[in-house]
Amino acid sequence: MPVYQATASAPVNIACIKYWGKRDTKLILPTNSSLSVTLDQDNLRATTTSRADPKFEQDQLWLNGKVDEIKPGGRLATCIAEMKKLRAQVESGSPNEPKLAEFKLHISSFNNFPTAAGLASSAAGFAALVASLAALYQLPTSPSELSRIARQGSGSACRSLFGGFVAWEKGTAADGSDSLAVEVAPREHWPDIHALICVVSDDKKGTSSTTGMQRTVETSTLLEHRIKHVVPERMRAISEAIKARDFDTFARITMQDSNQFHSVALDTDPPIFYLNDVSRAIIALIIEYNRVSVEAGGKLKAAYTYDAGPNAVIYTLKENVKEIVSLIVKYFPQTDGFKDTFGLFGSTGVGEGGVVEGFNVNVAKKFEVGAVKGLIHTRVGDGPRVLGNEEALLGADGLPTTIA
Amino acid sequence: MPVYQATASAPVNIACIKYWGKRDTKLILPTNSSLSVTLDQDNLRATTTSRADPKFEQDQLWLNGKVDEIKPGGRLATCIAEMKKLRAQVESGSPNEPKLAEFKLHISSFNNFPTAAGLASSAAGFAALVASLAALYQLPTSPSELSRIARQGSGSACRSLFGGFVAWEKGTAADGSDSLAVEVAPREHWPDIHALICVVSDDKKGTSSTTGMQRTVETSTLLEHRIKHVVPERMRAISEAIKARDFDTFARITMQDSNQFHSVALDTDPPIFYLNDVSRAIIALIIEYNRVSVEAGGKLKAAYTYDAGPNAVIYTLKENVKEIVSLIVKYFPQTDGFKDTFGLFGSTGVGEGGVVEGFNVNVAKKFEVGAVKGLIHTRVGDGPRVLGNEEALLGADGLPTTIA
Repeated sequence: MPVYQATASAPVNIACIKYWGKRDTKLILPTNSSLSVTLDQDNLRATTTSRADPKFEQDQLWLNGKVDEIKPGGRLATCIAEMKKLRAQVESGSPNEPKLAEFKLHISSFNNFPTAAGLASSAAGFAALVASLAALYQLPTSPSELSRIARQGSGSACRSLFGGFVAWEKGTAADGSDSLAVEVAPREHWPDIHALICVVSDDKKGTSSTTGMQRTVETSTLLEHRIKHVVPERMRAISEAIKARDFDTFARITMQDSNQFHSVALDTDPPIFYLNDVSRAIIALIIEYNRVSVEAGGKLKAAYTYDAGPNAVIYTLKENVKEIVSLIVKYFPQTDGFKDTFGLFGSTGVGEGGVVEGFNVNVAKKFEVGAVKGLIHTRVGDGPRVLGNEEALLGADGLPTTIA
Repeated sequence: MPVYQATASAPVNIACIKYWGKRDTKLILPTNSSLSVTLDQDNLRATTTSRADPKFEQDQLWLNGKVDEIKPGGRLATCIAEMKKLRAQVESGSPNEPKLAEFKLHISSFNNFPTAAGLASSAAGFAALVASLAALYQLPTSPSELSRIARQGSGSACRSLFGGFVAWEKGTAADGSDSLAVEVAPREHWPDIHALICVVSDDKKGTSSTTGMQRTVETSTLLEHRIKHVVPERMRAISEAIKARDFDTFARITMQDSNQFHSVALDTDPPIFYLNDVSRAIIALIIEYNRVSVEAGGKLKAAYTYDAGPNAVIYTLKENVKEIVSLIVKYFPQTDGFKDTFGLFGSTGVGEGGVVEGFNVNVAKKFEVGAVKGLIHTRVGDGPRVLGNEEALLGADGLPTTIA
């Protein structure tokens, strides 16, 4: 009997227009549309192998080699059940297909993110789960349709079903059937979009986004105005900016929407803070870096954005990455040096960093080593990839391999 | 010839419903009404002596003994001109009155605030200026009418013309004639309202409130909703809470409105941050302190509020001050000990502080000495006081005395 198995990898995505608030917590239907950039899987990815076997006694899942319980009625169970339903449809139309939908599954998933990076791994994880099952089940389903299922695992996971620039349309149907991800533009449209992730140390654990966003929905007196009157126009304008490769507008809206997301978090009762003094200092540096450019008759060259934590993601064009890495390293000395994935600095390395001419160095103080404990340089990337069996994360025994 | 001179002192006030945004920057007309508690002049005050003398060659003003230039068309000049106008009206109706409106003025003003307290002194300063001139000119003018003039010096100064609980009605007239302070309740109505000011160290100078609020008016997409739909209801509800001595509601609205003010500051482009990690930690402590009370079936016992800077003002009832001082001192050790104005702790002093039973000590870390560099305990106070000549700040030579 053949081994029914497939392996897929999926990327992370970082939103420019933020998702914050659900109108349906079970189906994970958002209160507003959102838009993100998919980051390159060559740098950050979740990889998942799914195997269907009549000998398996129950559906089981391992995350980074450890059992992750599939709770009945929980998010994992929902996604798996939805995928089996699609497989069953395929089988009912093609009686010769093996009855995989009836077999139990073993699923092994692995994130390659640096330890303690504090990066939301659930988006990549649920996208890889859905992509590996779609490959295993040989589904004819479109990425948008798959995104509807990934969404029920983790809202923002739906955006990781596409590469490039991705909108999650909030939809209006009560059953969530039109709450889907759609491609705004593929990576090839604007490959020069790069991202620098600044991993920021934090003393204390923040409010989880699941809890936090619903507290905002219940208590903020500003959120509804954002949802109804601010986001729709921003979605339109940033999509247009992406299509026109207008970085200035893209950057302006990205920063405004990051600010507004943290603004409604602060307008929550009790208030939610994700930005700390290090996050604030990075914002001050990017504002000053842009000011120098604009004052010289140029345009915005970088955009910061923050999710539900203190880590900064800085979007910029490829040509500016070197300046921005230098800037960040100058204020936030790195223990292990900067891992120069793209070979920007040659053999000399980034050294102590530096600022561009005209930069007011007093906009922030120099922090101690470790305040920014990691810098990851990546860029816009593609959507989920189906990988060969040589990359499988389940051994012949149906248990996770221990590769790291 | 007699010496025409008067001395008055005026209090600071700290808003519960925040003033942020002008609809007329010259007349200082606000975009929304605001409400504050006047703090006791026994602890914090500005004192001003004004003297009119036909021998003086020009209007002159000294602040803490140093010349403060009265720029033509500036805020000081406007207030002084308005007060002279009122005096001229009195004189035209009573021909026997000395013609003080025609004499030049010497004005000496002094703040007793601790050095570097970072407390907005302009509100108390302009209120004391107007009060001393009203006394010098023997004006029959009501405090509300005087507040209209103080408002043109510094918006929030208008609220320092009253003691107790004070609303600044935004008004609708284009000339600002109905943008005035009114008493919501006198201090005697609710004398148990106490305040603890936590003076917080900051690395960098923040955006001035004058600049910051207009940037918010110009760029925030949330401010208008706050102005139109949130503040009016909060003004009504907090006034009612004050009248009913309902501390729970008073505290809830005060914290919500502090959060929302900082929220619209953050929604500004570029964003404005006034709260730092120390401010955030104080918020976390107050939230946890209230949680313990509410979980035990009680009510909110404290309310934090922050103006355009990192300093916290904590409002509470007299009976809770001791617990709150202990709490703050535990997390923010004091160099010089706590100045126990009200004799709460007796001869043993506050010591190392402590928390109430059931308090989760992990909501914040303990900070280094100096993170909160001063604690000032005060309470609700009265409005401007006219003082005797023995407290005058101008000598026989018409120059500032050097008393400190």
